[in-house]
Amino acid sequence: MDVECTSRDLLLRLDPAEGRRSGIEAALRAAIRSRQLSVGAVLPSTRALAGDLGVARRTVLAAYQQLAAEGYLHCRQGAPTRVAWTPPAQPRAHDRRPRTPRWDLTPGSPDVSAFPRTAWLAAMRRVVRDAPHDTFGYGDPRGQAELRAALSEYLGRVRGVVTDSARMLVCAGFNQALRLVCDTLRERGVTTFAVEDPCSPLYREIVADAGLSVHSVPCDGEGLRVDLLAGSAAGAVLVTPAHQYPSGATMSADRRTALARWARERGAYVVEDDYDGEFRYDRHPVGALQALDPEWVVYAGTATKTLAPALRLGWLVAPGGLMPALLRRKERLDRGGASVDQLVLAELIRSGDFDRHVRRSRVAYRRRLDRLRALFPQVIGTAAGLQVMLPLAISEARVLARARRRGLALRAVGPYCSRPADPGLIIGFGTPPAHAYEPALAALAETVRTS
Amino acid sequence: MDVECTSRDLLLRLDPAEGRRSGIEAALRAAIRSRQLSVGAVLPSTRALAGDLGVARRTVLAAYQQLAAEGYLHCRQGAPTRVAWTPPAQPRAHDRRPRTPRWDLTPGSPDVSAFPRTAWLAAMRRVVRDAPHDTFGYGDPRGQAELRAALSEYLGRVRGVVTDSARMLVCAGFNQALRLVCDTLRERGVTTFAVEDPCSPLYREIVADAGLSVHSVPCDGEGLRVDLLAGSAAGAVLVTPAHQYPSGATMSADRRTALARWARERGAYVVEDDYDGEFRYDRHPVGALQALDPEWVVYAGTATKTLAPALRLGWLVAPGGLMPALLRRKERLDRGGASVDQLVLAELIRSGDFDRHVRRSRVAYRRRLDRLRALFPQVIGTAAGLQVMLPLAISEARVLARARRRGLALRAVGPYCSRPADPGLIIGFGTPPAHAYEPALAALAETVRTS
Repeated sequence: MDVECTSRDLLLRLDPAEGRRSGIEAALRAAIRSRQLSVGAVLPSTRALAGDLGVARRTVLAAYQQLAAEGYLHCRQGAPTRVAWTPPAQPRAHDRRPRTPRWDLTPGSPDVSAFPRTAWLAAMRRVVRDAPHDTFGYGDPRGQAELRAALSEYLGRVRGVVTDSARMLVCAGFNQALRLVCDTLRERGVTTFAVEDPCSPLYREIVADAGLSVHSVPCDGEGLRVDLLAGSAAGAVLVTPAHQYPSGATMSADRRTALARWARERGAYVVEDDYDGEFRYDRHPVGALQALDPEWVVYAGTATKTLAPALRLGWLVAPGGLMPALLRRKERLDRGGASVDQLVLAELIRSGDFDRHVRRSRVAYRRRLDRLRALFPQVIGTAAGLQVMLPLAISEARVLARARRRGLALRAVGPYCSRPADPGLIIGFGTPPAHAYEPALAALAETVRTS
Repeated sequence: MDVECTSRDLLLRLDPAEGRRSGIEAALRAAIRSRQLSVGAVLPSTRALAGDLGVARRTVLAAYQQLAAEGYLHCRQGAPTRVAWTPPAQPRAHDRRPRTPRWDLTPGSPDVSAFPRTAWLAAMRRVVRDAPHDTFGYGDPRGQAELRAALSEYLGRVRGVVTDSARMLVCAGFNQALRLVCDTLRERGVTTFAVEDPCSPLYREIVADAGLSVHSVPCDGEGLRVDLLAGSAAGAVLVTPAHQYPSGATMSADRRTALARWARERGAYVVEDDYDGEFRYDRHPVGALQALDPEWVVYAGTATKTLAPALRLGWLVAPGGLMPALLRRKERLDRGGASVDQLVLAELIRSGDFDRHVRRSRVAYRRRLDRLRALFPQVIGTAAGLQVMLPLAISEARVLARARRRGLALRAVGPYCSRPADPGLIIGFGTPPAHAYEPALAALAETVRTS
């Protein structure tokens, strides 16, 4: 009975007024009745529990046998003693999750079925085996030095970002990065934060959570209307120059220089959310806006689209003057992120596995995009990224209701816009696994047809 | 030259006014001069770059050869082309880290050299190999269902916590958990948050960051003075009943019931920081306070002391009524934590490896504690945890200065207290690796001797 469970811990509330054996029995019964122990839970071995309680082993054995007789426990020679019964469960109101749709074309995710498990695991093995002990202690709140070095090489090479390790801050995804920047800028006297219109509703909430007023500035086919921003009270602005989220426009060169000039002259900060800068499908990738003025542009990137949302890894490249405040806030928020995944990502970037994965993914996504364009020539914003906009001839509500009936998850344009807009869908063509892409498009075609 | 680098990405700013070959050369030169590319960085293969730019491969080859001739690049037959030179680095003001001390007896960390790398890696392999694809997508913001189930079984069994998966929220360590609770309670009208005195200064900062006033309530040998709390305006209180941090007292049974009564009658919340509840060295572990009133006590636990700070894994068990607000805030803060580590921890708990590691660690720490008590019989708070208080006969500043000279990292009591207190040290006897423990104690003995 001692084989595997000598190391199990169990907290028993023993009543000293009761006899020893009956006391142990009562405490175990209470633990099971109160669901402190659930069905299948392994009990401590009789030897371990006897040692912990300072009683003879036969006392514990007798208590276990009594409870087995009462139906509470399963005792078998050579196997650990387990709980056999628990009172009926209460309904769990909060434990329901929405039903998984059959097909998913909502934006925001890459094809996670293509996550490079083998390369990730191989790098993980090297890191966990070889890392010095202090890797497992509290890490540098800026992020592991190895990752900051690898990222600054990578971002310089691929996105033209002007940086070094000292200006990088690894974050738990872009949400946290945005919150850190908002808190830091509010502390510096910023009261109004401009966002693009359309924009992810979650980002408007994060800005508001930080105590800032949100000011929505319209976008057109060249990106943010910088002329309209100039007339506002905004002390900072969040933009997606490489590929406007979610409309898909690329910010024009004129708008970029106008935005950088606005920032410098106003003494305002631009937050550049470069969430999918790696996926550009025409010949000339557009570098990061940050390079135009690294003193007024905070660059933000993420591993969500290139690898997986589940990693929760993002990064900021910030003007040197903002770093101490960002760092202090990051430390208070979570004392820095988990270290091992950061070292694994650094290893993948250094070895070239990361670049290989991105290039492979880009080819696959470009094929998906071609297929989408062939079926829906009206889609907008196809130069980059993993989402396009599909204008609708009928109402969003009607299309979403149809899609639900077909088990197809879709996202309407409406919630992204702060003003009424023409009906449309934001199609995340990277989301489904490869084998589900064609059926998902077929379901989409059925869903949006007007007749 | 194409062997390994065809998959590398590179962003080049090409000036269309320049001839093709000289344009490529100029762009590469600029990229190297501006540190966009650093020494050793691998360039795209000539075939890949030629494809990307829409030029003949020989044009790229000629440009590479020219730059190699100028000393910018290393080109060798059969090896990838690499950057050979970068302009001298700027001094990096923020990139300095404090020098690692020779011995470390500061509190807050377990012996990370004992992290169970093999068990962790084996569980990681199973998880990364076998997990369904959607594991790599955005996870449940409450935390992975497997971990919440494993933790609710574990916390019920070992700490007597009354819970189920639906009341659990996995967090990025206790800092984030505290911030989430503070934000949620402020939203419900709480304005004053009581903390123990002494208390971690970081926690006072987190409470203040959330816009709450901090009210420090003295502790004595039985824990928090609940009578003094009752006279305050506090709408919530943070306590460490199992092992007061940092003084080491265990909250007495009378204080526990008095605190639970205060909470219920006042309609106030108690946050129980059970940071080291697994490490109890005398016979009867004291269960979680939360079991006295799960509707008014928010329980918080962590893997920092049992496994490693680097995991940044903690959890809340919250009254059902607080869950929706906590969850909404967690989602905005970081959209839920990284999934894979959570599944690995769930696997370790389920397999019994976690319990085995805790039990093994407890034996090792008990031995360390015995040794510490033999050398310093005056230490206080030795019933549990990984830290004790060592009263000093000389000033803290003098002891810290001596310790610094010896390369011994120590933490004084002063910063934990909101009022002047007797001088003392908080000794983290779990921090050093096993081989460094005796020398660290010898250095401590030298440091604190009065003569």
